[in-house]
Amino acid sequence: MQKILLQFDTDPLPSSFDRVVAVDAGVDQLMSYGGVTCENVVPLVHGAMFTRGPEDLKNTAIFIGGSGVKDGEKLLRRVTETFFGPLRVSVMMDSNGCNTTAAAAVVSAARHQQLRGSMAIVLGGTGPVGQRVARMLALRGARVRIASRSLQRAEVACQQVRASVPEAVVEPVETAVVDDWKELLGGTQILVSAGAAGAELMPTGALEAAGDLRVAIDLNAVPPAGVAGIKPADKAAERDGTICYGAIGVGGLKMRIHRIAVQRLFERNDLVLDAEAILELAEQLDRS
Amino acid sequence: MQKILLQFDTDPLPSSFDRVVAVDAGVDQLMSYGGVTCENVVPLVHGAMFTRGPEDLKNTAIFIGGSGVKDGEKLLRRVTETFFGPLRVSVMMDSNGCNTTAAAAVVSAARHQQLRGSMAIVLGGTGPVGQRVARMLALRGARVRIASRSLQRAEVACQQVRASVPEAVVEPVETAVVDDWKELLGGTQILVSAGAAGAELMPTGALEAAGDLRVAIDLNAVPPAGVAGIKPADKAAERDGTICYGAIGVGGLKMRIHRIAVQRLFERNDLVLDAEAILELAEQLDRS
Amino acid sequence: MQKILLQFDTDPLPSSFDRVVAVDAGVDQLMSYGGVTCENVVPLVHGAMFTRGPEDLKNTAIFIGGSGVKDGEKLLRRVTETFFGPLRVSVMMDSNGCNTTAAAAVVSAARHQQLRGSMAIVLGGTGPVGQRVARMLALRGARVRIASRSLQRAEVACQQVRASVPEAVVEPVETAVVDDWKELLGGTQILVSAGAAGAELMPTGALEAAGDLRVAIDLNAVPPAGVAGIKPADKAAERDGTICYGAIGVGGLKMRIHRIAVQRLFERNDLVLDAEAILELAEQLDRS
Repeated sequence: MQKILLQFDTDPLPSSFDRVVAVDAGVDQLMSYGGVTCENVVPLVHGAMFTRGPEDLKNTAIFIGGSGVKDGEKLLRRVTETFFGPLRVSVMMDSNGCNTTAAAAVVSAARHQQLRGSMAIVLGGTGPVGQRVARMLALRGARVRIASRSLQRAEVACQQVRASVPEAVVEPVETAVVDDWKELLGGTQILVSAGAAGAELMPTGALEAAGDLRVAIDLNAVPPAGVAGIKPADKAAERDGTICYGAIGVGGLKMRIHRIAVQRLFERNDLVLDAEAILELAEQLDRS
Repeated sequence: MQKILLQFDTDPLPSSFDRVVAVDAGVDQLMSYGGVTCENVVPLVHGAMFTRGPEDLKNTAIFIGGSGVKDGEKLLRRVTETFFGPLRVSVMMDSNGCNTTAAAAVVSAARHQQLRGSMAIVLGGTGPVGQRVARMLALRGARVRIASRSLQRAEVACQQVRASVPEAVVEPVETAVVDDWKELLGGTQILVSAGAAGAELMPTGALEAAGDLRVAIDLNAVPPAGVAGIKPADKAAERDGTICYGAIGVGGLKMRIHRIAVQRLFERNDLVLDAEAILELAEQLDRS
Repeated sequence: MQKILLQFDTDPLPSSFDRVVAVDAGVDQLMSYGGVTCENVVPLVHGAMFTRGPEDLKNTAIFIGGSGVKDGEKLLRRVTETFFGPLRVSVMMDSNGCNTTAAAAVVSAARHQQLRGSMAIVLGGTGPVGQRVARMLALRGARVRIASRSLQRAEVACQQVRASVPEAVVEPVETAVVDDWKELLGGTQILVSAGAAGAELMPTGALEAAGDLRVAIDLNAVPPAGVAGIKPADKAAERDGTICYGAIGVGGLKMRIHRIAVQRLFERNDLVLDAEAILELAEQLDRS
């Protein structure tokens, strides 16, 4: 029986990135849909539920993607609500690569610094990937500061992390005007920068000044760097005493997590792979 | 040479149901199009006609689907008109599952009651599936009453059945207000309910009262039942002396008909699988 | 590793013709997009560039098609501009079949008449295929006259040929009112007619009168013929001393060129198959 993946993309044209990865993960038949919304998704889900017997439904799965993470989250909810009884298929949500990228960053950091009890800061922490990073760090027991140019947006992001991870120790920090990066980063072991492409979030000199920093990860692939001094290809490169990763440096792991997660969908018919499950899967992968 | 199925769907997003069934029927390459109309279909048909030699054209076929049966019928006509000489491929039309569902119901009824000479009633007989059921019953020599809340719509449906099956003995019946279901169903051996989801077409008590009824089939899968007393999973279940089928009870046969019909498309390059051909195919399948 | 072809079509529904040919060329996974523009194509190209390692990128390729050749040309430019360093995949452009059809016509002509130094005329020379024919003939050293009902449009087409082929000897000719086809075609050895379907570009009698003509090719498949007297199935048929090809007569070669070009895409990751490259490939194919 062929492995069928239904790709539900919230953008008009379904992501070619997600399509290629699905093929390389071993999917036999990829059925890609663009412009999928909560309004038109139900018949598509019914087509997955009602076409194969319950014992064969593990050979059908759903992937939710697109550039909008909030849209993807809503769609995930709508899809899982449509299932009933044994008539369900496994679902993965990775809009904008948010879960696989964040998991790759968090697992990379954990190679060098125990997360539990650490202090972490997430620059661009209100964005789609940044929020996922903060959530995963909090889930693993790090104290997290979510940094944004807007304190208000950072506070909203903190509340969302707390909603997903009740035990989270998370607080907002404003980074529009930082006089003293050394002071800001004092006592912080982990830094992840997840801002929009083309924005420098941390200036030249800040990385050297951050004496307590053990790992710094910049997820921005397009120049200028989000953290001045980190190169995209950095992969556990030591710079001024800090272990650095760039976007390409974590990219290989991200791709492997993405592929493994897609493969995992076909082992059962009732998995929901969102942030927590994808982080666990990434940790297993990194250990093996 | 790979078996290619072009899926022309009249809805914006091509049916995932039809896609999964096509894959499970053994199609190698499925090319799915949504939003197909009589205006944009011709170049798509040309692409099927002009890309392979006449002797290889049996490896390319067209499936017409979507929620609108009338749109599907028009599209079928436009597609077959576009062919000429040996430059043609086989085509199946099954918008809204109308043909495969109706064929499954009619074949299920025929297991228990000879159709020729029987009296049959089709509740919701003006809908997409109901009209197909009436047409197939008439084609096999049953006298058919098409029931609807509107006598006028029932009469239009009767005319359409007569247009397809000139020898049809078919008459309309209004069921908006029925005082006496026992009287209405007197002398009727076959009942098929094919109304819209969520509408109870026959109330509690009516089934027990219908003394002549031999087979009752309710094609509604979503509660409430179209015929009070029939359960979706009923499959030749006897209830008050009547053999009952529910939507799930005929669903397995419907799926097999659908798959076999798709497979059949690739045996020749000149088949047109609409109501009559799909009924014949269902009958062969049920005998084998 | 599966061979993935991304089909970028500028029409709303991606060409089924190009899809079938891609499958028959051995593509494993075809990812078809309709409505692709310079505005939305970049993320699709990134998906091709960033999903496989540089050494594996020859297994991913892009095909640009659709009815608009100008749109296809712009899209080709946008796609190739998006690549950088080793992060690139091979691309073929064949909007409206312009390159493969023109190459088939030019290679067919060259079987019977040496192109270098010949005089050629292209009727309908301002259209998408006609311009490609003129460009390819000029590239091989023929002197080319581009004929159109509008002298001005013919002149524009000549300028475009010169822009692609600096050494081209090309001149415009108006064919709205031709008193004497014998005079017009005097000294001309090669004629290719590439006008729109349904337009007779050369009347009855003109072909017989053209004493110097050695090869005449009519690319119009739909009656009436573009050149009165040539039949669609003509394949090196001699008519009044001229060797004639019709649309179907060159169609087999066109299909082989199209398939071979698609296959070629997967030999390296840096090919750009536009007019020149497809002509070379067609010449190799015809020699082998």
